[in-house]
Amino acid sequence: MISLAELQRRIDSGELSADAAITQSIETIDTDDKTIGAFVCRTENPRSQSAGPLRGIAVGIKDIIETSDLPTAMGSKIYRGFRPRADAPVVAMLKQAGATIAGKTTTTAFASVDPTPTLNPCHHGHTPGGSSSGSAAAVAAGMIPLALGTQTGGSVIRPASFCGVAAIKPSFRLLPTVGVKCFSWTLDTVGLFAAGVEDLAQGLSAMTGRAELTLGAAIETPRIGVVTQDFAGAPEEAGAEALRIATRAAERAGATVRALSLPDIVGEAWRIHPCLQDFEAHRALAWEYRTHHADLPPLLRGRLDESVGIVPADYDAARSTANRARKALAKIFDAVDVLLTFSAPGAAPKGLASTGDPRFNRLWTLMGVPCVNIPAYVADGGLPVGVQVIARFGDDAGALKAARFVEGALARH
Amino acid sequence: MISLAELQRRIDSGELSADAAITQSIETIDTDDKTIGAFVCRTENPRSQSAGPLRGIAVGIKDIIETSDLPTAMGSKIYRGFRPRADAPVVAMLKQAGATIAGKTTTTAFASVDPTPTLNPCHHGHTPGGSSSGSAAAVAAGMIPLALGTQTGGSVIRPASFCGVAAIKPSFRLLPTVGVKCFSWTLDTVGLFAAGVEDLAQGLSAMTGRAELTLGAAIETPRIGVVTQDFAGAPEEAGAEALRIATRAAERAGATVRALSLPDIVGEAWRIHPCLQDFEAHRALAWEYRTHHADLPPLLRGRLDESVGIVPADYDAARSTANRARKALAKIFDAVDVLLTFSAPGAAPKGLASTGDPRFNRLWTLMGVPCVNIPAYVADGGLPVGVQVIARFGDDAGALKAARFVEGALARH
Repeated sequence: MISLAELQRRIDSGELSADAAITQSIETIDTDDKTIGAFVCRTENPRSQSAGPLRGIAVGIKDIIETSDLPTAMGSKIYRGFRPRADAPVVAMLKQAGATIAGKTTTTAFASVDPTPTLNPCHHGHTPGGSSSGSAAAVAAGMIPLALGTQTGGSVIRPASFCGVAAIKPSFRLLPTVGVKCFSWTLDTVGLFAAGVEDLAQGLSAMTGRAELTLGAAIETPRIGVVTQDFAGAPEEAGAEALRIATRAAERAGATVRALSLPDIVGEAWRIHPCLQDFEAHRALAWEYRTHHADLPPLLRGRLDESVGIVPADYDAARSTANRARKALAKIFDAVDVLLTFSAPGAAPKGLASTGDPRFNRLWTLMGVPCVNIPAYVADGGLPVGVQVIARFGDDAGALKAARFVEGALARH
Repeated sequence: MISLAELQRRIDSGELSADAAITQSIETIDTDDKTIGAFVCRTENPRSQSAGPLRGIAVGIKDIIETSDLPTAMGSKIYRGFRPRADAPVVAMLKQAGATIAGKTTTTAFASVDPTPTLNPCHHGHTPGGSSSGSAAAVAAGMIPLALGTQTGGSVIRPASFCGVAAIKPSFRLLPTVGVKCFSWTLDTVGLFAAGVEDLAQGLSAMTGRAELTLGAAIETPRIGVVTQDFAGAPEEAGAEALRIATRAAERAGATVRALSLPDIVGEAWRIHPCLQDFEAHRALAWEYRTHHADLPPLLRGRLDESVGIVPADYDAARSTANRARKALAKIFDAVDVLLTFSAPGAAPKGLASTGDPRFNRLWTLMGVPCVNIPAYVADGGLPVGVQVIARFGDDAGALKAARFVEGALARH
């Protein structure tokens, strides 16, 4: 993989030109994307910018995020050839920070669950996960140092886990979702994929202009609460092993680690996530559902057909549950700095029929809290399995610092 | 003006066909819009639908709201000829409820403050207000019974006051802002214009499928708190007179009315509204600002140039102030059902150079609470002046019922 922070250091020192860094990415895409299929379209003759913290950084943009100079097809034939007028704010933020957009990466249709043809770079017979399939795969394959995805259930953290890359789903609305095809306006969150935690911190800090998101020299030892999300069922053995390994590594590195159970209302919030998501999806995708029903991909169409009966009272009750759960969860963070839990039930499923299960992710999307995936374990067949570090709403800096601590502990393990 | 509820009754009883109702609107637009200039583009041969509570209802859509079958130009040459692929959810909701889209109505560029050429139907020498200029004017001129607008500062309630129509800015996110050009994701709110409060209730209920938003037979007598928003400065004489008249009418009709002063933190929230709005606008309009600076209209460009230095820490502090103010305001509603206050400083300003001042509106947009404008007074020159009824967040039904009470009291006055 290409480390964004390492590229920045080499460019800053003059060892590497921004042009050469971009060229390197383009050549790797030219070679490797024939097999992986992470990109749906590419910028013609991409050029490096001369200034900005992300000069020389080639970025992949999930194809539900609007771009002024590339089509945005939402992973669906309904949007074939669609040309937005403007760049989504997150794309404009990248360009303003000096980045170069390499192209648009594959997405399941409307960021739902119908798979893309993208292969998992760690094992071509397995899914890279979804819905941000192309972004996770392009970073994992070493084509680009940074990519944008989005998460409504588990679409950033899960593919990162399956592909063995770092990723952050920041606090809700730290990055604007303007110009990002909406599935659920309460849940949709833009996230970043990169080689490691420092790379994520450099990318997010450059995009937002928030210096506090860079890691700094000293990483404090975090108080960690380990949660197993029993309401979501048991993990597979590989998922459990990843959490055991990360827990042990953090303990050995000096962290205070203890098992935590979450209040009942938080489990209740996990249960109502689909109600809230699908009620909003019926409104967000009302035009597509009403006028292009037959052109919707089968899994999404089935999901919408099944959830057509959710009424406003169900939705209002779900929102109220979510609000109560957010308050209860905030209290948990008085006793620990971060939570550590599964990024996915296990390694990437075999084949491309499913993008995997978001059951260990969806609660945290609904809570709006920052989540960082770190690869923790490699299962049979070379398939990576991650864990996620989760901090209090708004404490993205804390999530990144604690994730860096765990990443470092795992490296020394 | 055309009453939506009255049209519904006539269509339901068979006295009027849905087709004839649409034709009537189209003919009025054909005749009167040459002078008023409320529409930027029109549906070719609009047809009525055969079913749905809004069949026979011709609706105008503010031209920052995306439509699949009409261009969406955002009031700016930067978007000339832009064709979105989909209908915004609020447009899809209208169509699903049986409505017919008559056309797109004028908007100040990006729903900011640079005026449109639309005239105020009550006095052609005055502004109809903005940014939802065309929607307010088209309803006021009796062209259509329903129109959609949006409010970030005061862009629904203020033009409604200036044009003498009823309008509701619902609770934040009761109507999705998906597919609506974003200025500020924390503030932008879709609202409705109609002849009277019952018409608003029928329209909003049909769009959302929320039966509780219809008025029902019995309107309870509300407890009203009158607030003068002293932090926003003094109103003009016409604004003060409108509030005096509405207060007296409500009292005579039996309401409990008392003057209320708002907690200091609420005034503080009023002060930070521009910081929050402009920080988000710089991100929402980053592409336009970066690549089409010279094509931005002068007032918006000036506003963005002046606010370019707002840093994340200012924004974070503003969000924290807004959150504390929302909690303090919620407590106020333990003692009263609704608040009654100015919809605008006074009558519509003369000329078309300014769309008027949102200083009595912006607090309530930031608080996310439902606001309903009711015409209360006619100043010199036949210029209407409204007042707004404001309820607790989420109590849109209560806001509409209390507004209907005040509207009825004013009619008997």
